[in-house]
Amino acid sequence: MTTDISSDKAIFERRESQVRSYCRSFDAVFARAKGSTLHDAKGNSYTDFLSGCSSLNYGHNDPDMKAALMAHIADDGIAHALDMYTGPKAEFLEAFERLVLAPRGMDHKIMMTGPTGANAVEAAIKLARKVTGRTNVIAFTNGFHGMTLGALSLTGNSGKRRGAGVPLNSVTHLPFEGSLGDDVDTLAMIEAMLENDSSGIDAPAAFILELVQGEGGLTAASRSWVEGVARLAKKHGAKLIVDDIQAGIGRAGDFFSFDDMDIEPDMITLAKSLSGFGLPFALTLIRPELDVWKPAEHNGTFRGNTHAFVTARIALEKFWADDAFKVEIAEKAAVLTGRLQRIADMIPGARLKGRGMMQGVDVGNGGLAGAICAEAFVRGVIIETSGADDEVVKVLAPLTTPMDQFKEGLDTLAEAARACVETRIAAE
Amino acid sequence: MTTDISSDKAIFERRESQVRSYCRSFDAVFARAKGSTLHDAKGNSYTDFLSGCSSLNYGHNDPDMKAALMAHIADDGIAHALDMYTGPKAEFLEAFERLVLAPRGMDHKIMMTGPTGANAVEAAIKLARKVTGRTNVIAFTNGFHGMTLGALSLTGNSGKRRGAGVPLNSVTHLPFEGSLGDDVDTLAMIEAMLENDSSGIDAPAAFILELVQGEGGLTAASRSWVEGVARLAKKHGAKLIVDDIQAGIGRAGDFFSFDDMDIEPDMITLAKSLSGFGLPFALTLIRPELDVWKPAEHNGTFRGNTHAFVTARIALEKFWADDAFKVEIAEKAAVLTGRLQRIADMIPGARLKGRGMMQGVDVGNGGLAGAICAEAFVRGVIIETSGADDEVVKVLAPLTTPMDQFKEGLDTLAEAARACVETRIAAE
Amino acid sequence: MTTDISSDKAIFERRESQVRSYCRSFDAVFARAKGSTLHDAKGNSYTDFLSGCSSLNYGHNDPDMKAALMAHIADDGIAHALDMYTGPKAEFLEAFERLVLAPRGMDHKIMMTGPTGANAVEAAIKLARKVTGRTNVIAFTNGFHGMTLGALSLTGNSGKRRGAGVPLNSVTHLPFEGSLGDDVDTLAMIEAMLENDSSGIDAPAAFILELVQGEGGLTAASRSWVEGVARLAKKHGAKLIVDDIQAGIGRAGDFFSFDDMDIEPDMITLAKSLSGFGLPFALTLIRPELDVWKPAEHNGTFRGNTHAFVTARIALEKFWADDAFKVEIAEKAAVLTGRLQRIADMIPGARLKGRGMMQGVDVGNGGLAGAICAEAFVRGVIIETSGADDEVVKVLAPLTTPMDQFKEGLDTLAEAARACVETRIAAE
Amino acid sequence: MTTDISSDKAIFERRESQVRSYCRSFDAVFARAKGSTLHDAKGNSYTDFLSGCSSLNYGHNDPDMKAALMAHIADDGIAHALDMYTGPKAEFLEAFERLVLAPRGMDHKIMMTGPTGANAVEAAIKLARKVTGRTNVIAFTNGFHGMTLGALSLTGNSGKRRGAGVPLNSVTHLPFEGSLGDDVDTLAMIEAMLENDSSGIDAPAAFILELVQGEGGLTAASRSWVEGVARLAKKHGAKLIVDDIQAGIGRAGDFFSFDDMDIEPDMITLAKSLSGFGLPFALTLIRPELDVWKPAEHNGTFRGNTHAFVTARIALEKFWADDAFKVEIAEKAAVLTGRLQRIADMIPGARLKGRGMMQGVDVGNGGLAGAICAEAFVRGVIIETSGADDEVVKVLAPLTTPMDQFKEGLDTLAEAARACVETRIAAE
Repeated sequence: MTTDISSDKAIFERRESQVRSYCRSFDAVFARAKGSTLHDAKGNSYTDFLSGCSSLNYGHNDPDMKAALMAHIADDGIAHALDMYTGPKAEFLEAFERLVLAPRGMDHKIMMTGPTGANAVEAAIKLARKVTGRTNVIAFTNGFHGMTLGALSLTGNSGKRRGAGVPLNSVTHLPFEGSLGDDVDTLAMIEAMLENDSSGIDAPAAFILELVQGEGGLTAASRSWVEGVARLAKKHGAKLIVDDIQAGIGRAGDFFSFDDMDIEPDMITLAKSLSGFGLPFALTLIRPELDVWKPAEHNGTFRGNTHAFVTARIALEKFWADDAFKVEIAEKAAVLTGRLQRIADMIPGARLKGRGMMQGVDVGNGGLAGAICAEAFVRGVIIETSGADDEVVKVLAPLTTPMDQFKEGLDTLAEAARACVETRIAAE
Repeated sequence: MTTDISSDKAIFERRESQVRSYCRSFDAVFARAKGSTLHDAKGNSYTDFLSGCSSLNYGHNDPDMKAALMAHIADDGIAHALDMYTGPKAEFLEAFERLVLAPRGMDHKIMMTGPTGANAVEAAIKLARKVTGRTNVIAFTNGFHGMTLGALSLTGNSGKRRGAGVPLNSVTHLPFEGSLGDDVDTLAMIEAMLENDSSGIDAPAAFILELVQGEGGLTAASRSWVEGVARLAKKHGAKLIVDDIQAGIGRAGDFFSFDDMDIEPDMITLAKSLSGFGLPFALTLIRPELDVWKPAEHNGTFRGNTHAFVTARIALEKFWADDAFKVEIAEKAAVLTGRLQRIADMIPGARLKGRGMMQGVDVGNGGLAGAICAEAFVRGVIIETSGADDEVVKVLAPLTTPMDQFKEGLDTLAEAARACVETRIAAE
Repeated sequence: MTTDISSDKAIFERRESQVRSYCRSFDAVFARAKGSTLHDAKGNSYTDFLSGCSSLNYGHNDPDMKAALMAHIADDGIAHALDMYTGPKAEFLEAFERLVLAPRGMDHKIMMTGPTGANAVEAAIKLARKVTGRTNVIAFTNGFHGMTLGALSLTGNSGKRRGAGVPLNSVTHLPFEGSLGDDVDTLAMIEAMLENDSSGIDAPAAFILELVQGEGGLTAASRSWVEGVARLAKKHGAKLIVDDIQAGIGRAGDFFSFDDMDIEPDMITLAKSLSGFGLPFALTLIRPELDVWKPAEHNGTFRGNTHAFVTARIALEKFWADDAFKVEIAEKAAVLTGRLQRIADMIPGARLKGRGMMQGVDVGNGGLAGAICAEAFVRGVIIETSGADDEVVKVLAPLTTPMDQFKEGLDTLAEAARACVETRIAAE
Repeated sequence: MTTDISSDKAIFERRESQVRSYCRSFDAVFARAKGSTLHDAKGNSYTDFLSGCSSLNYGHNDPDMKAALMAHIADDGIAHALDMYTGPKAEFLEAFERLVLAPRGMDHKIMMTGPTGANAVEAAIKLARKVTGRTNVIAFTNGFHGMTLGALSLTGNSGKRRGAGVPLNSVTHLPFEGSLGDDVDTLAMIEAMLENDSSGIDAPAAFILELVQGEGGLTAASRSWVEGVARLAKKHGAKLIVDDIQAGIGRAGDFFSFDDMDIEPDMITLAKSLSGFGLPFALTLIRPELDVWKPAEHNGTFRGNTHAFVTARIALEKFWADDAFKVEIAEKAAVLTGRLQRIADMIPGARLKGRGMMQGVDVGNGGLAGAICAEAFVRGVIIETSGADDEVVKVLAPLTTPMDQFKEGLDTLAEAARACVETRIAAE
């Protein structure tokens, strides 16, 4: 019976809420996955250039994580322990300290939040408000930080915001780099607004930003802009929160998206690929002097997913013990840039967006971008759009994708783009 | 190396945020768990009367769920698929429809929210506001609904609320049954406030309530009170949201806490024991006519945890295909009531709280309740308090606890209580 | 031309906003007024039982105030001086200190707010929030405190509240005495809510209340209830704000509505009859230790209306230098009670409301109350309704109304009531 | 006794709240005033270059208004009539229609709000929110719109905002022309933010702006910028509210500050000089199709100050029946520009601000500007600063100031400036 059910989509139509979304783009029932390949119930296979929106940076079912997780479960390892002490938590903390924090000279405390990025963001802004005694938080145009009320108030997308049903308050949205046109100095504008004691922009508790805007169109902030924001935050007594949920953990090129910049974020939110295996897991890093939480002042049932501790530790040890993975990402990123440029060259006005393994092509409108993604899916590549108008074809391949499969997938994407461009020309 | 790390608590002190809490009550590093028994790294074992705050209603590492999950992983089953269609999701939906909804004549749609109870609650109040065009939500004193900004605004606890750092708005808190004293008719009071067009209480989008207040002191609302609230909600055009995150999935005696009441909630939130295995998983049930979400209007990376689909389906099939489990719960609940009464009888003014397998003893103050729990831990039972002043010793044993272990654990609890009472008497 | 214009209502229809209201009940163009009598442009005269909603407690154009104001203007006295020092302000302050504060042992500072009651209320809650560092303010069902955003959030009436267009926040509305039925102890309920640390009612910056609810149906709080609220406020670190805008300045029987109670309000708002002459003027009294405003932290162009200083001083000296006026009010109040009882006796279920010269008859519904007022107007008495459903016929005669005119007006009101009752009976 | 009191400042220190402000700059007790001259209790006289912050555009005690007001009072004309129909109201409406609206082809309805500018602003934003069903209002940096909660949320000044004690919400503050530097195109920036569907700036109910920022530093928006804002408002479905409380009624050169621009504001707020005599009076003009108020949906005791109706009508008839007054203002404005330029020339970096009879000199910092005003006061000229840092010496002389007195006052101001500049030089 199982087989029949699993390939029959009637149950979704009948029973799952209309809010479901990705399934509308990818008309298949998926069954198995390994590395960068997904298999559906009918036996078709697909190259995954979506990676669970950057939640599967190491691909599906990495064999080492898989083995460790199965061993843990086989041994009746803890699955759920609230925030009690467990061996897997200790091992994760130790690995994170040794492989992530120590090499960077960071001394942040690790806060296990509820296992969603939104929850990590909510914790960060709560703490910034508590520490500063201020309420206003500065977020940026086209930012995406989650869908719970506090996180949603930071998010730019109007469709998502309207879902709140109440005004979203105590946040000031200022322009992200480039959002007012390439020639407008948004940093100067932000500085002028903050320096003006009658601007109506209340003294901020925090700035929160993504260095590469995952949902907002793959806009990557420059080093100088980010450092400028960090400087302004410091000057105005605001905490700097880097939301590295989508751009972190290798996606933008290194473990953190800011690793090559001269900033010291007060807080950093991580989720998505943190577990390494696609399991729900999120945390907020906090500079030690800001860790003034009372016990349980922000709590939750699933903070600290023990299965995720197991796989996350393996991921850190396997991929971040030396620079090899970073070098591999850089090589693939270079290939990606080259291939995307060829696609951009097909489309008048198109331009590349993003950096590292978080790149895409802004094709000018959501209609064309959507058509390219749909064509790619027909050809066996799973890929999605990004941006305020869904105008960017966004490649979020697993960072571990073998080079051959990666290039093949990019070839397929180029074919899809070419088909759409030709169709458009024919229609004119 | 692993062994040393996992039994050394220095790493937690050094690296984990001060916000951690349960670990402060239970001074051990846990390693393995099976059924109702936890084992620490030093080889000690404990009976679990906390169950991950009701997230482990079927105990730890249920063998059937464990086998299914291991088979799924071994076969490179999907771990993460955003909200795309997968076989395990189809099977879960089918089982939930067949075993939960259909027998109750319910036709609710299933919304996969982010995998935390707070996220399910946030989704529910968003939808209620969207559907009604109203902003105010009525919540009740001593209610607990989560820690993200929207959920926190519904939560009563002042310590948690202060953590928000901003005023929590668009919620009216009205008195839960019994909260103004046993002789005060809170339902009449609520009705009078709502009927008065100049009460200052804006027309509500929804009422949200727990039928047994898990964090608020195990207060169980009576059938007539709950039905009265449901009637008022209907009369005033408000949606009725039952938060069954802690009281549902068998804890209060049946799958839903309201199964023996004549109400038809518009929305129901589930999380905690939903996966059956302690994995992060949450959903919101929505009456079909209210399912007016636009695609992705509330979204999130981890909505629909595929591993959890696997275990949750097994849980439904194993425990809810017939009435046997419900009967078993009732038997244990009766034992629990009897044993708790004996404890209450030791303490002047103490009284029983709760219902089903969600019962406890209000011992009058948090100091005594905390002391009893601490004494129980020394004797090998993990148990926590509940209530505004932590005044209730709360038993949340796995529903599957073997009767012998259950009685033994309750004996231990009674000993702990007796020890505390005697110490107190001696001190006077 | 002037004469024609002034008796032609077309200009109002053509040019004045639909928001106008009282003019809809009283179909006349008024020209002159003296004492308790209004004259319209056609030569009709009316007894004024509305008094500008208690803004004309000393009647129209009191001869002494009139003379002083004309002398002031004739002498090119200041009309407008922002909040600079002027002679009339000094004289007003001195008279207020000598005749109002000193006899009561009060040491409050006088804050000249914008010349509306709403502005005085906004200033009071700002200061309470500033002083306490808290945001929540407790207001009461059926309270009316004004229509600007802060004041409106305190007001109970749902029609007024909907006008805000945004959620009204940071206020908790609790039940006023009697609002849940005569037998419900609202004070105990409020106390229970405040004592419960998990009630969801955030620690209040202030309680604000009217001792007799002018717009809310003339409900008069008992001495014990008011003292109980004062006690609770003190216990919970909240400031007590008495809104005496409508009930103060003689209306409820003495200068302040709380003069016979054992309370010491932290702040008191006054407006309406403060100028004595119907001129816009408002102030907030502040206990000296709470006067921590920075200069201009709450400002406004018209705070301190100099013409009003002139008349207000005369009013204080003429009416409040000894007890004679208070005795006169008490005598009229007794007459009023007796006459209203006769009206109440005509109507099954009717009951008296209010106290002092702020009394009325709750006739059970707005239809009948409105009909009585309309009948009274036809007979030459201007009178309005009050209450959530406009169910109270409210007598707000000038306190200075000659006894004969007062009784005659009340006779007319009784005739109007009788006519309505007979019409109703005939219709059945 | 009166004389002594009125010249003794001890009463203010003893009894008036610390919030008082202008009196701190002008150390005198004022007694009488006529035209542009104020007299204090000691017999000193002062030229008034403050005009009640533009509330006395026609000077003090204009003889025609004075005569009409005295006649009205002498005849027992109405002083207070709530919003009932009165002769003076009809005459004011007729005059306003005939002399203000009709010549401009405007068909706005006149809403009598509470008699403060803040109240007129609160009414306007309420209505914009009601009409559009949106909550967000766009206000501009350095704008000042009042101190009640709704108006304060629109105001830029941080000191004033902090007085609220709660977060000020549902308003987006965008940069006024020039506020980001002379070379930054703020209009383009605003347009880009509004066009971006992911900017996080919710669709606005209204834009509210002053064309010359009275408190914000006398920045005058250019015709093209204002028309651009009007165009953006229309395009985005937002209502355009011109706050003409300080810049209107002749101050900026014509009756409305936008009379020479091609815009049609949906709403206009007026107060300050509206009565002509310095009496509290405010109104909101509303395009007729937006006048969807329910009766009393925004109400208040003092809306429609009858004394002010009398003087306001005279003011309209005397000054606005033909172009003579406008021509006179233009002549004086030209003189003002020339004289202020001479002052600016004394101070390195100083520059002129404003337009019409609402001009000043930005001297670069508040210390110098304050010193100049203090020096001017010593020399018999009352004048104040403006701007976020009080850096502008602001001339707000009565528009009716005789040319000789005007020039003399400006000479005095120049002397004061020279003295300060010399002192500064000497100190270096």
